[in-house]
Amino acid sequence: MAKTKAFKPKARRPRGFEDRAADSLRAQRALISAASGVYERWGFEPLETPAFEYADALGKFLPDEDRPNEGVFAMQDDDEQWMALRYDLTAPLARFAAENFQDLAKPFRRYQFGEVWRNEKPGPGRFRQFVQCDADSVGAPGPAADAEMIALASEVMGAAGLGEGDYVVRVNDRRLLDGVLESLGDAAPEKRLRVLRAIDKMDRLGAEGVELLLGEGRKDDSGDFTEGAGLDAAGRARVLGFLEATGETRGEVLDALKPVVGDGVGAQGLAALEEIDSVLAALGVTETRAMFDPSVVRGLGYYTGPVFEAELLATATYDDGSPIQFGSVGGGGRYDDLVSRFTGQAVPATGFSFGVSRFAAALSALGRLDAARPDPLVVVIAAEKDRMADYFQIAAELRAAGLRAEAFVGGGNMGKQLKYADRRDAAMAVIIGSEEREKGEAQIKDLALGKRLAAQIEDNKTWREDQPAQFTVSRDQLVAAIKERLS
Amino acid sequence: MAKTKAFKPKARRPRGFEDRAADSLRAQRALISAASGVYERWGFEPLETPAFEYADALGKFLPDEDRPNEGVFAMQDDDEQWMALRYDLTAPLARFAAENFQDLAKPFRRYQFGEVWRNEKPGPGRFRQFVQCDADSVGAPGPAADAEMIALASEVMGAAGLGEGDYVVRVNDRRLLDGVLESLGDAAPEKRLRVLRAIDKMDRLGAEGVELLLGEGRKDDSGDFTEGAGLDAAGRARVLGFLEATGETRGEVLDALKPVVGDGVGAQGLAALEEIDSVLAALGVTETRAMFDPSVVRGLGYYTGPVFEAELLATATYDDGSPIQFGSVGGGGRYDDLVSRFTGQAVPATGFSFGVSRFAAALSALGRLDAARPDPLVVVIAAEKDRMADYFQIAAELRAAGLRAEAFVGGGNMGKQLKYADRRDAAMAVIIGSEEREKGEAQIKDLALGKRLAAQIEDNKTWREDQPAQFTVSRDQLVAAIKERLS
Repeated sequence: MAKTKAFKPKARRPRGFEDRAADSLRAQRALISAASGVYERWGFEPLETPAFEYADALGKFLPDEDRPNEGVFAMQDDDEQWMALRYDLTAPLARFAAENFQDLAKPFRRYQFGEVWRNEKPGPGRFRQFVQCDADSVGAPGPAADAEMIALASEVMGAAGLGEGDYVVRVNDRRLLDGVLESLGDAAPEKRLRVLRAIDKMDRLGAEGVELLLGEGRKDDSGDFTEGAGLDAAGRARVLGFLEATGETRGEVLDALKPVVGDGVGAQGLAALEEIDSVLAALGVTETRAMFDPSVVRGLGYYTGPVFEAELLATATYDDGSPIQFGSVGGGGRYDDLVSRFTGQAVPATGFSFGVSRFAAALSALGRLDAARPDPLVVVIAAEKDRMADYFQIAAELRAAGLRAEAFVGGGNMGKQLKYADRRDAAMAVIIGSEEREKGEAQIKDLALGKRLAAQIEDNKTWREDQPAQFTVSRDQLVAAIKERLS
Repeated sequence: MAKTKAFKPKARRPRGFEDRAADSLRAQRALISAASGVYERWGFEPLETPAFEYADALGKFLPDEDRPNEGVFAMQDDDEQWMALRYDLTAPLARFAAENFQDLAKPFRRYQFGEVWRNEKPGPGRFRQFVQCDADSVGAPGPAADAEMIALASEVMGAAGLGEGDYVVRVNDRRLLDGVLESLGDAAPEKRLRVLRAIDKMDRLGAEGVELLLGEGRKDDSGDFTEGAGLDAAGRARVLGFLEATGETRGEVLDALKPVVGDGVGAQGLAALEEIDSVLAALGVTETRAMFDPSVVRGLGYYTGPVFEAELLATATYDDGSPIQFGSVGGGGRYDDLVSRFTGQAVPATGFSFGVSRFAAALSALGRLDAARPDPLVVVIAAEKDRMADYFQIAAELRAAGLRAEAFVGGGNMGKQLKYADRRDAAMAVIIGSEEREKGEAQIKDLALGKRLAAQIEDNKTWREDQPAQFTVSRDQLVAAIKERLS
């Protein structure tokens, strides 16, 4: 094949990676700014760790059961060591805390936001790069520190524009289920596994189906039989009592859990939730904002006690009127063993992580995050190409008056330039052609008003004759006139 | 070997990657916020592209001559295609603009900040990941758009707290040197290469040494002879005249360049600088802020016309009193061929990029960026561990009053907790033990005042007896008392 043309790459992104344009980014930044403000006020300090960590420092905590040891973007460094892009902000924090343990004031309270990467199969709304925003206390042993994380998450959601009933933070403790399993007596791993598998089917099969799987087994619609865990009636009642523990208040949920979680590790989990409840009450976090829910699991393998899940309850609507459910926008929990992986000594820690990209998208759809709107833009039309210095000067005057302004630096005639201003959603355009220049005047087009009027006026002729959204001022009144119109 | 212990990874970072702690991050964020504010006011829209691009989309423009085709972190995706982490924000912008060309209002004016990665040998102050902050106009053909970039850079430096004389943006046009080479007549690549190599040695050898290399050749101190480019006296004078073109004003530099850059491409470069000069003058960008300098090169291979370099002139001092020079903190230029690599059609573009990490570090060392300081912190001591709810409530009251406050959630006695407050640089600590609680009181330690007093008072005994920085208030006056002290 003759190679007659230069190589021309195709402009495209790798699968599962997205570009984020202005609207989406402004929402994301407003959310990060609101969250950072809360973290700062609560005494957390900012930290940034690099994108790469050594693979062994990250550990293997991802919940992707289908591809064990995968789920990360890994590469070998020049010195043959394996590095990987971080998949969350918690594992790097554990590495940082361990590396600098002696020098840190403890508890080490830090917040961090930034990109994380997951080498997973991309899908609709499922990206291989997204932004998280975390707050953690490392060296904080008690449930009070967990309660603080829950209250903090609740306050961030409030700062993001959500009110009572718009969201709830669901709280559980992993030790509760451990306690239930422990109390079943027989600790054979096979039996335990079958109980866990049965619990996992609660959503799909309901209590009746799960009870069969906890007992002798269950035959599905196709006739296939799944062997059960062989629990007796008391055991089955205990597990179902755990799964169905609910109540109007946090206290009622605790009361429902008490008889089923046993006296050992389950009782420890229960005591933790009790202390969490009392701190939340002191912080004014009502039960509509934070509730106990034994069905909360959290996929990541490093949690050791309380776990949290922040769920959006507010719904937006699709064009056809059906509701958009947003679901989980963040979560966290206690991870007492993550730092000690490195140091060997116990370092209790707890934290909360928001999925910023997803959360911000939901807030935009809900019409929250007012701070995300940009200031109105004024475009100075380049009517005479050899007068660019004049147009830049006008833009500079407008900016000096506190406005957002630019001179047109692209190519094209007046019509193209006005179309540009329109596509940029500019509020105003300034036109000084040779005629205006000689008279010491400037034309102002109120594009925003023009759009509103155009939507009202049916008769195109009236519209063209009136041109009520276009007017002329003297050059030295230009900035004042625009400022007045915009205010 | 018996495997008796669990694997314990070492807590460490891959070479050339750094953690960024609070002070450094706050400076970086203040800088990004100042720059973003300027870009927004000038009509640029935010954009974020992903960390990964296809390797062929990034192209090979890095100046690392020693390792051609390297310098990036590349990996093969599941579908066998090569991806690489972006090494700057310009190449991804070109890909984005090409991919969305039909849908973009042109000129497409965007700003972006974010991490970039270079797979280079790390060294002191030389990292493999750092932050850049860019503004670009894509679809902007004239030198006026270049001038706007220079003015924009100058305004960002002003917004970052730098004044007249603290910095300069040096401006050149690549076509000037091309014009000089063209005017030498003989376009043999070998000769051209020798001229470029000679020019490159100006810093090291000075005009005399360069003239030898431009002519017959030069014998160095060790006796090695380097063959010269063989230019005649007129040719040598022309090249040296170019390298030494200076002046008090931008106009004087242009006058000095005029006789040496020839009538072809060099004259085009000169005309561009003339228009840039007139726009800069209109925008009030003085010659101390932006100057022409034919020695500016910019390493990246994609520039096609005007190139810019932002240099810090202000110096800080080392402990020994010697000056810290900061040098370049950013640069940019015109890259008319980068988008057309994808589209085949000409898309003129120009932009400016700041090296945020380096620039922010310099500003910190210079004591600029006032916005980077955090609010004073109040730590509520956990005097009675079973009263955490009370302490959280106090912290919440302080925050509701607009202060930065936290309850201590770590482990340890009062002494350890006060030491913590001290290490966090807290302004105040609040202590309510059983005694204070029973009396309805609270103790306040003014830690900041304590530190100042401790520095003054020599006599330790006086200090302990007076304790002037510690006082008691009634519990219901606590927040008001702290607020008053801090204001």
